[in-house]
This record gives sequence, structure tokens and C-alpha cells, in this order.
Amino acid sequence: MAGNSIGQLFRVTTCGESHGAGLMAIVDGVPPGLELSEADLQKDLDRRKPGTSKFATQRKEPDQVEIISGVFEGKTTGTSIGLLIRNTDQKSKDYGNIAQTFRPGHADYTYTQKYGFRDYRGGGRSSARETAMRVAAGAIAKKFLAEKFGIVIRGHVTQIGPEVAETLDWNEVPNNPFFCGDVDAVPRFEALVTSLREQGTSCGAKLEILAEKVPVGWGEPVFDRLDADIAHAMMSINAVKGVEIGDGFAVAGQFGHTTRDELTTEGFLANHAGGILGGISSGQTIRVAIALKPTASITTPGKTININREDTDVLTKGRHDPCVGVRATPIAEAMLAIVLMDHFMRHRAQNADVVAPFTPIEPK
Amino acid sequence: MAGNSIGQLFRVTTCGESHGAGLMAIVDGVPPGLELSEADLQKDLDRRKPGTSKFATQRKEPDQVEIISGVFEGKTTGTSIGLLIRNTDQKSKDYGNIAQTFRPGHADYTYTQKYGFRDYRGGGRSSARETAMRVAAGAIAKKFLAEKFGIVIRGHVTQIGPEVAETLDWNEVPNNPFFCGDVDAVPRFEALVTSLREQGTSCGAKLEILAEKVPVGWGEPVFDRLDADIAHAMMSINAVKGVEIGDGFAVAGQFGHTTRDELTTEGFLANHAGGILGGISSGQTIRVAIALKPTASITTPGKTININREDTDVLTKGRHDPCVGVRATPIAEAMLAIVLMDHFMRHRAQNADVVAPFTPIEPK
Amino acid sequence: MAGNSIGQLFRVTTCGESHGAGLMAIVDGVPPGLELSEADLQKDLDRRKPGTSKFATQRKEPDQVEIISGVFEGKTTGTSIGLLIRNTDQKSKDYGNIAQTFRPGHADYTYTQKYGFRDYRGGGRSSARETAMRVAAGAIAKKFLAEKFGIVIRGHVTQIGPEVAETLDWNEVPNNPFFCGDVDAVPRFEALVTSLREQGTSCGAKLEILAEKVPVGWGEPVFDRLDADIAHAMMSINAVKGVEIGDGFAVAGQFGHTTRDELTTEGFLANHAGGILGGISSGQTIRVAIALKPTASITTPGKTININREDTDVLTKGRHDPCVGVRATPIAEAMLAIVLMDHFMRHRAQNADVVAPFTPIEPK
Amino acid sequence: MAGNSIGQLFRVTTCGESHGAGLMAIVDGVPPGLELSEADLQKDLDRRKPGTSKFATQRKEPDQVEIISGVFEGKTTGTSIGLLIRNTDQKSKDYGNIAQTFRPGHADYTYTQKYGFRDYRGGGRSSARETAMRVAAGAIAKKFLAEKFGIVIRGHVTQIGPEVAETLDWNEVPNNPFFCGDVDAVPRFEALVTSLREQGTSCGAKLEILAEKVPVGWGEPVFDRLDADIAHAMMSINAVKGVEIGDGFAVAGQFGHTTRDELTTEGFLANHAGGILGGISSGQTIRVAIALKPTASITTPGKTININREDTDVLTKGRHDPCVGVRATPIAEAMLAIVLMDHFMRHRAQNADVVAPFTPIEPK
Repeated sequence: MAGNSIGQLFRVTTCGESHGAGLMAIVDGVPPGLELSEADLQKDLDRRKPGTSKFATQRKEPDQVEIISGVFEGKTTGTSIGLLIRNTDQKSKDYGNIAQTFRPGHADYTYTQKYGFRDYRGGGRSSARETAMRVAAGAIAKKFLAEKFGIVIRGHVTQIGPEVAETLDWNEVPNNPFFCGDVDAVPRFEALVTSLREQGTSCGAKLEILAEKVPVGWGEPVFDRLDADIAHAMMSINAVKGVEIGDGFAVAGQFGHTTRDELTTEGFLANHAGGILGGISSGQTIRVAIALKPTASITTPGKTININREDTDVLTKGRHDPCVGVRATPIAEAMLAIVLMDHFMRHRAQNADVVAPFTPIEPK
Repeated sequence: MAGNSIGQLFRVTTCGESHGAGLMAIVDGVPPGLELSEADLQKDLDRRKPGTSKFATQRKEPDQVEIISGVFEGKTTGTSIGLLIRNTDQKSKDYGNIAQTFRPGHADYTYTQKYGFRDYRGGGRSSARETAMRVAAGAIAKKFLAEKFGIVIRGHVTQIGPEVAETLDWNEVPNNPFFCGDVDAVPRFEALVTSLREQGTSCGAKLEILAEKVPVGWGEPVFDRLDADIAHAMMSINAVKGVEIGDGFAVAGQFGHTTRDELTTEGFLANHAGGILGGISSGQTIRVAIALKPTASITTPGKTININREDTDVLTKGRHDPCVGVRATPIAEAMLAIVLMDHFMRHRAQNADVVAPFTPIEPK
Repeated sequence: MAGNSIGQLFRVTTCGESHGAGLMAIVDGVPPGLELSEADLQKDLDRRKPGTSKFATQRKEPDQVEIISGVFEGKTTGTSIGLLIRNTDQKSKDYGNIAQTFRPGHADYTYTQKYGFRDYRGGGRSSARETAMRVAAGAIAKKFLAEKFGIVIRGHVTQIGPEVAETLDWNEVPNNPFFCGDVDAVPRFEALVTSLREQGTSCGAKLEILAEKVPVGWGEPVFDRLDADIAHAMMSINAVKGVEIGDGFAVAGQFGHTTRDELTTEGFLANHAGGILGGISSGQTIRVAIALKPTASITTPGKTININREDTDVLTKGRHDPCVGVRATPIAEAMLAIVLMDHFMRHRAQNADVVAPFTPIEPK
Repeated sequence: MAGNSIGQLFRVTTCGESHGAGLMAIVDGVPPGLELSEADLQKDLDRRKPGTSKFATQRKEPDQVEIISGVFEGKTTGTSIGLLIRNTDQKSKDYGNIAQTFRPGHADYTYTQKYGFRDYRGGGRSSARETAMRVAAGAIAKKFLAEKFGIVIRGHVTQIGPEVAETLDWNEVPNNPFFCGDVDAVPRFEALVTSLREQGTSCGAKLEILAEKVPVGWGEPVFDRLDADIAHAMMSINAVKGVEIGDGFAVAGQFGHTTRDELTTEGFLANHAGGILGGISSGQTIRVAIALKPTASITTPGKTININREDTDVLTKGRHDPCVGVRATPIAEAMLAIVLMDHFMRHRAQNADVVAPFTPIEPK
């Protein structure tokens, strides 16, 4: 296959282009008996969908999902779940220029070299539009994990361009279009993004995503460590250039006696490791951070080449996010949910008979 | 499977514990006709092996690899290659204490909860000893990629604890036990590691790994992006807590008009993206950075619990690396080679008939 | 995942129930540049679709396929291809009886025990209706293999119940609803099926499927032999209970000096092996035979139990095929095409650089 | 990968050539806590090993297996299990003739075309010698399934060349070198094989393999049906040319009202389906039959070509089985065990929470 699937047991396969007929996903391996309706998926789709604030692209897509299969009388049947979202706002426009020119910082050049040609309408398959189906599939995993284990997966933006959030109040996160938990940072974010849009440019962002109440024992030794699979899932999101687990890059400068998370019968004394030890969940909160680069779709002209291998300039008109990190929170949550669901199932397949020698230590 | 394989077409499967009979790997999918001998693998194994300097563990393991199958008359046959390394220096010692106690910052606790019990001898499967087989398998990929494409995969240490390398001279990297390209940083690294060992603690590290001359077009859209698979491979190395591609976390604070890498017919004007656009190699140098946490195996006592769920203290005697990052360079190179080899084969499977519309742009 | 995908590089994933909203498939790994339209898929879908003769179910389904993604300007792009078929003739009927009762010879009982409940509408996922998507996906593989290699994949029915076809004229195969190449057998088949339908019962069938002009060298040693993957694909078709390659079960009674297919520079002298040696295609015609059991959906009452675990009788009203083998030929062709396409790509990934020591022997 | 692995969760990966250094297997996914020693594996290895009767090859291989990893204090740890068998009886002989000539009916020709050259020593990877590792890995699955579920997996030979066994007494199966349950057929088998060896030829065979007490619910809908995966596993055994489940090819001539297996609260009334309905185990005995072709390694000269593409004759000296079916029973049992183990784990991963609506029907 060519990379359009993720997960080994909870397996999500997607297709669809930005300006084609629509998006599809097939989610295989979902345990039967989970109550599931389109509304369950729509909730997170609406958090991600474009056109909801002036800090995101103005493309209007209702992202209305239809469950085609795998649910009967309101419950998952255990067979593969089919999801369909029709594209509705593919503006008829003249793609002539984009068709012949490779936008710098985009997949235009690499797709053309790889495949010989490309669907240039809105970026085709390389558009972040495909992330809608990640969110829909992730919502199934999220719901299962919440109902069975009480797992809470949630994210927030910690940085937009040079502006940094200093505090975190989870109650504030849904109250602003940035998914930011620092009420004081929001006006700074607003001013920055507005100014960048006026200047015809864009900026990067940093997010933190947490999973609380993950049981101890999920993950695998060696290659498919839980953190390795999380890194894979996160780095597969458009524009992500860095992934950290726990203290992340800060560990390079740390020392063993302070960084190891000591255990007591009352609980762990710290969580530098981000909830994963030896590739396996420790029962502590899983902490992940990611950085997204500024979108290259900006109205400032940039040097590039065209299909005839001639030097030219290009600027990207159309409706684009000035900071793709703004809408990335539900996507990153979905990816974390997909990985955790997959590893729950992998763990259960092998280890359901295991009797742990004692009750788990409380998480920190 | 339980996570002991990596790669879809170039597939490496390993087994073996730190203090068991030895390590094995089966490498499936290797193209036939590659000249291969044990010496080809030994070269990188010797770069990784323990006991070669006072800045690494004093365990003496020759890590002598035997090719069991898949090579005939000096060439790979196309069938699966079997590799075997016997353990030779498993010191007979009293594991009694470690057997009953969970070392903080280690996989002891999570393995026990996951599997019900664990092979406590030297960490068993969770020991970094398993990385020897990564290096051996990676050497096959490295050799193929070098011979067919001239690809150069090499890494160096940029930080040991708080000490940072400022310059890079590739000629210096093999001349010191740290794989450091800054000759002036080496004495600082030596002093730091010596001091930490005396204090009974350890430190983290940061590495950069590059792949030069990778052709344009390798990688997949969506989930199995080349960068996503690199992130997976790197985060699967023991102690790694962060992975960056290109500018990595710095992109969060950057702007679109400076970060996008403009193209001209003379070449790319920059390489912020780290050689990957839309998940697909651009022909530029692939740049990866990783951070490794300080090992938790230190002689400073730490709080923990025992198998009876009682509070206790533990300190780790034995022969341990004061900075696991010191020996990580050949491991990270091997992981990058494995990912690239796999994606070369994936690309060729689907796209060998493609005629690209023009000759690739020169890398930057 | 839960078994709704097939193929490693040419990978088909499907979903959809008999009486749900429709069927979907995502076909990943298709090489770019293949001219493809809905008409290419419709041709084989029409050969399989129900309601076209009185010897098949009377359910009317146009099986009109829509390509949702992966095709641009009439050519495959190399990204995942999405296919959608809406169900249109799900007769509103009272399923009450079937809902509570397990039809013998069906998946009703096993699905209920596996998943706790089942979508009882027309068999849900266990209905042969899902095979429509096999045919659609297989048509992509067929087209590619025909265009690039001139491979011809075609099948015919050799037995319907106790009635056997004695001759084979490929020109006759499309001229009768049985896909039978023996014009004299057709009236016997017609009489038999008509009589069985009147008697309220059904019968089995046997098919042969051939692939001509498959190049030498496709397949893998050991587990994923070409014949092993063909056996997997064929046995995955509803009602199939036996698979033969080449001489099949007859080999049990044969001798080495007659069964081995001798080679000369003019060609092979026989093809007992069915075109596969050591799991790898020999360049000869690949010969596969399969047997399908009589459908259990008949109007003769049968003993069974109900959801309350009480003894009861059941008979299956509704619109059913009196011999599921009648429509199986395009399905089996599709499965063979999918396997061959996958192995072509696997072979190319590993062995595209191989220079064979001499030109292949002519096929027999 | 190139086909040297089988199983999705219980995953067996092998390597090794007939006349190389030895054979290796890595078995990943084994549940922890299973008591396992080399003796557990040796029992079935000894049933398969060569040189034990005059009706099999005279090559002497003790097939002594060493467990390299994954077992600690007599129990599986949950990490990957490494197995090693050294080759000991690779007779130094002149391969010159075989090296240049392609034995008809062997993989010599196809391997050479696929890979450009081949390891010609004793057939290299295409030798049935690789099946030793199937038996060793299968023994792990067999032991687990027996201990947890009481599953009994056993096979017997029903036909050797034209001679057929008429009765089945399981007690007789271990008493003769043919694994035959018909004491009266044994002398006929002996006479036949002796005579064929004298004539310089070989014959085919047919086997039946059963799995009793498999719980209801294992298997998947659609592509990875339990029967499809069994067909894959069986057809992957050297020389197998046909696979049947339940009544197999006989179903082609059967009728719906007799073939469907009616259910009552007392149990199923028949088992034509072979214990699998809709791809999922029904709780009845799983019945599989396979046919193996006569080995082509015979002393009667046969026409072939050589590496220079010239016509020539070849006869195969050396030590070969006159009927490869004779030693196939433990191999086929192992393959069935591997598939069942994998599907048990797949089932548990997804469906461990399912509460079936009633207690299962008794098997027939």
C-alpha cells in the first residue's frame, strides 16, 4: 500500500482530494457494541472545520459526515465502518497558474517528480483537507476509550508564531478559535494573526496534547513503542516538523538523578518521561508536544520554477489558513486517540490473561 | 506481532535479551546481488559496541556477527538474511535486588505490569543491547543505498548534557568517542562525563543525523510520510524523547515568507524543511535531530517500590553508560538507513514506470 | 484490522452491508498514469450484478460505481482511489423472523457469537453483496496488467451441481448466464437450476480461472508464495470450499516422472504445476480451480435454533441465487487480478535491478 | 518484506537454507507466562525430521533447536522468541551439475529468473528443509491452544500415490512412518514407496488435518476469513497443490437442503462446512485436506535446460524423500496451529468484551 492507512488492529484507511468529489474513510477493527452516530463524529469535525473564524481559511465546508456501514441499530457491529464527506465548496476557479507552477514549501514539486503529474486543484491529496477524516476516525477511538477507561484526550495551543501562552485553564480552551488555555494570550494571538494576514504571510505554532487515565501496560518493546507510534502519527500531520514526548528536547541538558521519575506507593513523584517507560504506558498522563511550520500558501510572491523548468514567481491566492496550527488541535487529539486505541487492542490480544502482581501505582 | 519488526518491504525483525544467549535478526526483502560479508556489518557494530572507551559502559562484548543465511558466494540471494550475535560477557552476578525492585526511569515497572513478570537480567529485552541488531541490519541498507545512489548517511553529537558543540568538521567525528565534529567541545564533554560518573549520575544528549543525495520522490502521502516513518524509527531508539525534521521546533516561531524554501533552476535557496515536502523527499539533504534522556541507571539511590508494593530505595550497580547518547550515533544512522531503504523499495514498487517531466532541481 | 483488506502493496479495503446505505472500497497503491474511468469498472460489475437472468437473484441493483478520488483528468494519480456504490433495492420487508433465527449454513450463528449481535438485514456484511467491490477493485488490476503485460485473466464454469461441462470455447463463455464455455452443457445447466428453484433448493458449482502471459518471477518463497496468496484470495470468496492450483488434488495419485513439467529451449512440455514453481510464476498459464457450495438460502424448511436457544424451523424467502457459482466467475477473476497485481509490485520493489541470465522459456 | 513471515499477531518469521549454516525463526506476539522449553518444540521436530525411516530421505539432521530468547525461568516473557537450528549434515559434494542445470518441477528456474542467480546447494531456500522452523514455531501455538482451550490439532495421511487409506484409528497414526490411521493401508504404502524408489520415481499424497474444540467466533469476515487464512497457510507448504475445507470439491455436486448443516439445541446435525461458517469458526471440528505433488527430485533422467539455455538432461542424485507427503503431517498441523493462534489473538483484541447471547451449541 501507499501510506493511506494507519494502525495495526484499529486501522484507518482514507482517500480524497481537496477539490475532488469528497473524502472517505474505512475504519476496520472497531469493537462491536459501541453506541455510535454521526453526531458523535460531527462534534470533533465541527471543531476542525474551516470557515468558523476569521483566523482560519474562509472556505465553507459543513464537513457533514455520513456513516455508510458498520453501524446497526445505533451500535457498531464489529465490521468495517465506512465514512463519507462530500466536498461542497470547491470554488470553480482558474487553476492555470498553479497547475504549471510549483508553490515553494508545498508538495507540488515532490508529487510531480514522484508520480509524473499531480492533481493541482487545491493541493489535491496533499491538502490538509484530508485531516477531516482523521478527526472523524479518531472520534470513534476517543469515544471508545472514554467509555471503557475514562481516558481523556485533549490538546491546546501553547505558541502561535513568537507569541507564547503562559498559563493553562482547560475551561478557556473551547472559548477561543485558537484552542488556547491562556485567556491573556488570546488577544496577542489575534493581533498577530491579523497582522500576518495583512502582510501576506503566515506563522508556525506549537501544541501540547495530553491523554489522561491511560492504563499501565499499553505499548510494545523495541520498534512499535507507544512513543514511536505516537511520533509517527503526529509527524504524519501536515506541517508538523517536531514531536516531543514528556520533557522532549529538554532532556538533552538534564541529569539522571533529576530526570528519572521516582516511584512511591503513593504515586510517581514526577512525570518527565511523559507517561511512557520503555515504550509502554506507565499509567501517568501521556504528554506530547508538536510544532507546525507556517503554511507556505501566502500572498507574498516567492521564487519558484514551472513545469518547463523555468524560473518564475508565484503567490498563492485563494482561501488559506494564516496559521495551520490554529485548527490542528482536534487533529492531533484524533491521532493520539487512534494510536492509543490500536495499542489497547494490541495489548489485549497478547496479554488479556496476565495477572499483574499488584495494583498499579497512582498516576502523576 | 508485538512490535519486534520494522519496515514494510525492507523488513527487520529482531529478538534477544541483554543477558540471554544472544541476539538475532532476520532481514527480509533485501534485493539480490548485493555483495555482503560479515565485515560489512562489523564496521558499524564496532562503532556502537560497548567497552571501547571510558565514556561508555565497561561491558566487553565483541558483538561478532554471523550471517546464517541469505548470502551465497558473497552476494545476497534475495531470501531472508539471518544474523546472530552471541552474548559473551553476561557477568554472573546476584540480580536478587533488581529482580524484586523496579528501577525508576526504567521499563521494569511497565514490563511487569504488562507481562506479569520480566526478565530482570540487565534489563532483558528493554536493554539498549538490542540496538546492536539495528546497527547490523542498518548496515545492509546503508551499503545498498551507498552503492546504488551514492547516499551518505552520517550523524554526530551536538550536545552532551548542558555542553554544546559549536562547529562541525566531519573529519573529527570518528576521532573521538563522542562522535562529535567540534574538536573544541570534546574536552568539555570528557570533563562533564567524567565528573558525572564520579557524582553517580548521568546526562542527556542531542544528535543530528543527515542523509545526503537521497533522490527526489521517496515517501508517501498522508500517514506513511517519509518524515513520519523517520520519526517512528528514531523515537523507537531507547531513551529518545524528541525528534525534529529540518528546523524542527524552531518552526513554531517562524513566518511563511522566510521558512518556505524557494526553488530556482539553480537549486533550492534554503532547506528549512529538512529535505522533505509533503512527506516526500525533495532531493535536498534530509536533516533529523533527536534528543536522548539521561540513563536512569546511576549509582545515586532513588526512591522506588518493590514487587510487594512497598517503598524502598534502589541504586544501579553494574556497568552502565553515563550518557547513552554517546554511542547512539551509529544506531540513529542505522534507523535512518532502514527507513530510506524501505521507502526506496515502496517507491519503486509503485512508480518505477513514471517519467518525471523534467530533471530534478539540484539539492541544497 | 479485522480482515477487510487484502494485498500488501496493491491494497484493497472494503466496507458495506447488503441492506445498508451502500458499499465502499479504497484501493491504495495503484501506479499513477493508468487511464481509468467508471466505465472500466462498470464492465465487470455488470457481469456480476444481480437481476440479469432468471438463473440469478431477482434483486435489481444497477451497481453503479462512482470514483470519489485518486483519478484526475482521466488518469490515476498514485493516491488512494475511493469507490462508492449506493444500494438501491433494499426491499423494505419484515426481517422479524430472520432477526431472531439463525439460518443454517449461514454466518448468522457465528457472527452473533463473535460480535454479540448482527446486522440481520439480508445477511449484512456476510452477504455476497460485498463481492461487488472486489470486482470493481479487481478491474483496476486487470486493466493495468493487460496494458503493461498483456495478461489475460478469464474464468469459466466447469460444473453446476452434478452437471459437468465437457468442452471449452472461450467465445461461448459470454453468451450464456453461466459463464460456461460448453454450449451443449448450457441447456443442462438451465434445466437443473430451474428444477432446483422449483424444488426450493440450490446446488454447488466448480470454476476454472486462468491467467495467461504472466511473466516469470512473480511470487515469494516460503509463506507468501504466489499460489498461497491465490489460495487465500479464492477461499475468501463466499461459499468457496476448495482451491486447486494446476492439477490440484489429482497430484496425490500421480508420479514424479510424469508430473514434473520438463523444460526445453522450445518451451515447457507440460503444465501440471499450473504455472507456479516454488511459489513463483514460471511464465506458463496460471491455472486455478475453485468449488462453491450450494447456497443455504432456500425455501425448503430447515432445523435451527433461535436467539432464545430454542429449536425451530426456518426457510429463507426473499430473492436468492439458486447457485452462487453462477455469478462467481467475475469475482474469481478479480481476486486473481488483485493477487497478481500485488505480486508484480512486490517483485518490482525488490528485483527491478535483476538481470536474468537468459531470456525466459516460452510458456506452455 | 519478501514473504518470510506469516501471521498478523502471532507472527512467525524464518530464514535459512538447506545447506547453509542453519535455520532461524523469530516468533513474535507469544503471550507471556506459557511454560516452554526446547523439549516442547523437539517433540514435533522429531516427528518431522529426516532420516528416521527408509521411506524418507536418508539425510541425518538431529534438528536440535535452541531457544535464543523470549523465555525466562521456563516461561515465555511476551517478547520475541528466537529459535536456532544448526545444519549438521550438509554433505560436501560436487554441485557442479545442479549449479548449471535447472531441475524440472523445481524452483531452480523461477528463482534464477527472479533473483538473477540462486543458492543451488540442496535447493537453498526452496528446500523443504525450511519447514523445520514451521514445526518449531507451530509447536508453541499448539501448546498454548491445548493448554488454554483444550484444542487438539492432529493430522493423518489418507492417500499415498494411488493407494488410499480406508479407515482411521488415531492410535495407529504414530505407529507407522506414514502417519496413517489405517493399519491395513500401511503395507500397501510400504510396498508402493519401496517400488517407486527402485524405479527412480516418486508419488503424491493426500492428508487430512483436524482441529477439535476450537471455540466459536474465531475468524474474520471478508478477506481474512479463517478458511482463507488456512488455505494460505496450507498452500504455502512445499508441494501442496490443493486445499479443501469441510467437504471441499465435493460441494460442487451437492444440493442446498443436504449440505447446509442444520442446528438444534442438542448440536449441529452435520459438518459439511468443516467447522467454519462465513469465515468464522462454528465450534465444530475444523476439517482441512491437502494434496502434495510427487517430488521432482528423482533418479529418472528428465529433459531440461542449463544456464546457457541449452537443452540437456538431468537426474537428481542425493538423498530425497520418495514421497514428500510422508513427512508433511506435522508441518500441516503446525500451519493450522499458527493460523488458529493468530485468529484467537485477533478475535480477543476486538471482541473480548462481547457477551454472547447464549451458550454455544455443542460441536459435531
